[in-house]
Parts: sequence; C-alpha cells; structure tokens
Amino acid sequence: MKSIKTAVDQDRFAAHVGIRLLEVSPGYARAEVTLSEVHMNGLGTAHGGIVFTLADLVFAAASNSHGVDAMAVNIHISYFKAVREGTLTAEAKEISLTRKLGTYAVDVTDTDGNRVAAFIGTAYRKSEKDRR
Amino acid sequence: MKSIKTAVDQDRFAAHVGIRLLEVSPGYARAEVTLSEVHMNGLGTAHGGIVFTLADLVFAAASNSHGVDAMAVNIHISYFKAVREGTLTAEAKEISLTRKLGTYAVDVTDTDGNRVAAFIGTAYRKSEKDRR
Amino acid sequence: MKSIKTAVDQDRFAAHVGIRLLEVSPGYARAEVTLSEVHMNGLGTAHGGIVFTLADLVFAAASNSHGVDAMAVNIHISYFKAVREGTLTAEAKEISLTRKLGTYAVDVTDTDGNRVAAFIGTAYRKSEKDRR
Amino acid sequence: MKSIKTAVDQDRFAAHVGIRLLEVSPGYARAEVTLSEVHMNGLGTAHGGIVFTLADLVFAAASNSHGVDAMAVNIHISYFKAVREGTLTAEAKEISLTRKLGTYAVDVTDTDGNRVAAFIGTAYRKSEKDRR
Repeated sequence: MKSIKTAVDQDRFAAHVGIRLLEVSPGYARAEVTLSEVHMNGLGTAHGGIVFTLADLVFAAASNSHGVDAMAVNIHISYFKAVREGTLTAEAKEISLTRKLGTYAVDVTDTDGNRVAAFIGTAYRKSEKDRR
Repeated sequence: MKSIKTAVDQDRFAAHVGIRLLEVSPGYARAEVTLSEVHMNGLGTAHGGIVFTLADLVFAAASNSHGVDAMAVNIHISYFKAVREGTLTAEAKEISLTRKLGTYAVDVTDTDGNRVAAFIGTAYRKSEKDRR
Repeated sequence: MKSIKTAVDQDRFAAHVGIRLLEVSPGYARAEVTLSEVHMNGLGTAHGGIVFTLADLVFAAASNSHGVDAMAVNIHISYFKAVREGTLTAEAKEISLTRKLGTYAVDVTDTDGNRVAAFIGTAYRKSEKDRR
Repeated sequence: MKSIKTAVDQDRFAAHVGIRLLEVSPGYARAEVTLSEVHMNGLGTAHGGIVFTLADLVFAAASNSHGVDAMAVNIHISYFKAVREGTLTAEAKEISLTRKLGTYAVDVTDTDGNRVAAFIGTAYRKSEKDRR
C-alpha cells in the first residue's frame, strides 16, 4: 500500500485542509480531520466541502488500493447533522468491484460516533489502453 | 442579497481554499477559483474536493437567495475532466422550488469553457418551527 | 403497520409488475419479485426499471412506517450485476430520521444472495401544514 | 439507429408498462407513457417506478445510440411533482461522452410541460474485451 500512502502524502489539497490518512488496506481506508476555524461555513458549522473532501480522500485511497489506477466517476453525498467542533472520521468500504468499476460506501462520523454524512462513490479503473 | 453576500463573506472554508463569489440573484449564483498548488491531488490535477466545494458554494448561495434559510440535504456530482491549471467557474441555476425544498443544477467549467463537472443539489428550506 | 400494508396493497403499479411486500416494521421493509418474461429488457436481463421499482417499494414502505406521510425527494441507484432469472429481494433500512427528512439504504440481491443494486432514498415527511 | 429501435422494441418491460419510444438520434432519445390505473401507487398518483422506468428507457436508448453497447452504472433521480393523469414525456440529452463513459440528463414533464422529475444517468461503454 506504499504507493497509495505516497500519493495521498502528495495530496496537497488534503494537507492544506488538515486531513490525515490513518489506514489503507485492500478495498478499505480511514481518515480524520480535527475541525478548526478554517473549516467553518458562514453559519459556524463544518462546511459541506470539508465533509465531502474527507470522504473523497478515503474513497480515493480505497479505490486505488488494488494496484490499478482508479478515478472518480460520480458521487452521491447525504448530510445528516451539522457539526461545530471535534474530529470528523471517514471510513470507506468497498461494496462492489468489477474489472472496470468500483463502488465504495463512506460513512462520516463525529467525535461521539454520530453519523454526519453518507457518501457513495463510483470509480473507473483504468487499463493500460486508457493510459496510452 | 446582502445577507447572502455577508454569509458567504464569512465563509471561512471558502476563503481558505481561495473561492470568490461573483454574483448572486434569486435562484442563481456564480463563483470561481484560480487553481494553484494547494488545490492539487497526488496526481497533480485539481482535487475532487475543490471542484465540489466551488459547486457547493454557489448551491448554498442560490438556495439561500430567497430570504429563507436553506440547508443541503444531499448532492450528486459527476466528474468529466481532470484539470491542471487555470480558473474553474461554477454557475448554479434553480430547477425546482417548493415551500420546503429547492433543487439546483450546477455546472463547473474550465478556462476554455469545457464542462468539468455537473452537480445537482437538494436543499431543505427551514421554517420558523425548525428554528425553535 | 396496517395502514402501510393497505397502501401497498392498493399500489396498482407494484401489483401490475408482480412485486410482493413481505415485511414492514418501523424503519424497515422487505419485498420480492420473481422474474419472468415481462421484466426483461431488450438484452434479456431484468430491466433497470423493475429493479428500481422493487427498491422504491420498500423505500416507500419503510419511510411511511412511522405514521407520518413521507414522499420521495430523490434517489441514487447503482447497478452491479445483470440478472436473467430467479427472485430479486429488496431490503430497506433507515439510516437517518429527523423531524422532516428520512434517509433509507436499500440493498437488492438475487436468488444466490449476490448484490444486484444499492439504492439510497431520501423522503420528505409531511406535516399538517403541508396538507392544507 | 435501427438496432436501438429493435432493442427497445424487444424491451418487454417497457411494453408491459405501456411506454412508447418516439425518437432516437445520436446522444438523444424521447419517449412517452399515457397514465392509466395500472401506473398508480397507493396514493392514486403516478408511481415513482413508472416515472423512473420512462426516464431509464430514454437513457438506455440515448446511451446506446453510438453503436457501442452501453450499460447503466448508476442514476440519480429527483421528483418534483405528483401527477394523477395525462401523458408523461421523457427526453434524454448527452452531457458528456468519453471512450468508456457517457452521462445523460433526462427531463420528465407532464401534459402541461411542468417538470415532474430530473434524472442523471451514467453508462459504461463496453469494449470488445468486455465481451470476451
């Protein structure tokens, strides 16, 4: 999994917004972000963009965990709860994998383990032909 | 529209990631971000999280443009094209508005006007009762 | 749950396409359909429309299981596997419930228990005011 | 476009639920259904399943209109309005096409031209290799 860790370590945007990747294994990833002032929207709660970006990072890590480059095709995210402080954790699990497509469910929870958002992402797995 | 502008001006996360709101009118909003190193993922292209956050900002501005507080319920985003540089622009248009729900289509385009992503967001419009 | 069973019993479209509701409890529902010629698309596999309709029925039953009228706002469905014969089963589980919104995850499986589709549906829960 | 017409003509489920394909051209399709008793849910309005199936048919026709087999990956559908009678029309337009993926926006309208639902579908385009 070194290559995934490396790619994520080189993820400037994730670093810029304070996200830490905690764990990657085949079809799985987990990450967290500790909320601070820079993550807030105009209402003083965590911005939808930081919740999405956290979920997107574990989706990317999990979908790229099999040694084949995968790129996001589309994502559906549902928000359940506004959060003002603490740490958000996202966990991605693979729910389907075919030769060309992978689908991942991501749950985002707050410090108390309450569900903050549910995310389902579909990735296209590149073949050699796509890279030519 | 002053209150929306103010709320967006107080949006710390949007400011932190360099997004500028350009225009808001009833049911409509437009914003942009000039890509730089901090927006890149491990592959050197604009992170899905910055594309989403830009789209999310115009969705929030447009859905709150009628003087009733609106919060994101869920979003579907499709990515069409990886972008390495230039300016991304997002434009939100209202496609449905009822007493309690609003739905918005957002297009994200690159400097050359190519479609980068399509986003559809649904917002719940709060009533006095919700605020009690 | 009698009212839900009655409403579903009066669901003409579900009956027309051969769907049977098996179980409803608060926040939960399960249904099935035995595939036959009428459910096939031009390729001879179960039509996306019958898979969706089966999932939609358990979403409707589960979201209306609390004694408050709920209507579908939007749905995301992912298809994983084409099916030619046998029985499809759909099971809905509640993943979030607030005063005005409910979110349900539905899994559709084939006779062998393989995952055929994943569906996430959001419902708006009507209040007295909405009915005026 | 003869092959698409033929495939859709052999679509048993679409025929069973009364859908008529009206037009197919590259990246585009249009179809309709005249509502009757069999399309109603327990509330006496058009079932979400018939609205979806109508939209799905034009998505399938449009995504298969380029001479390459395409299969549905996932779909997002938003419902805006309950309909009790008349004719529903669905129109699919291509919003993105790459070598392996196509994305289509479908609008469903009622007899008066009011928007009933918006559907965005993503299809995977098979290559020879997939068929082996």
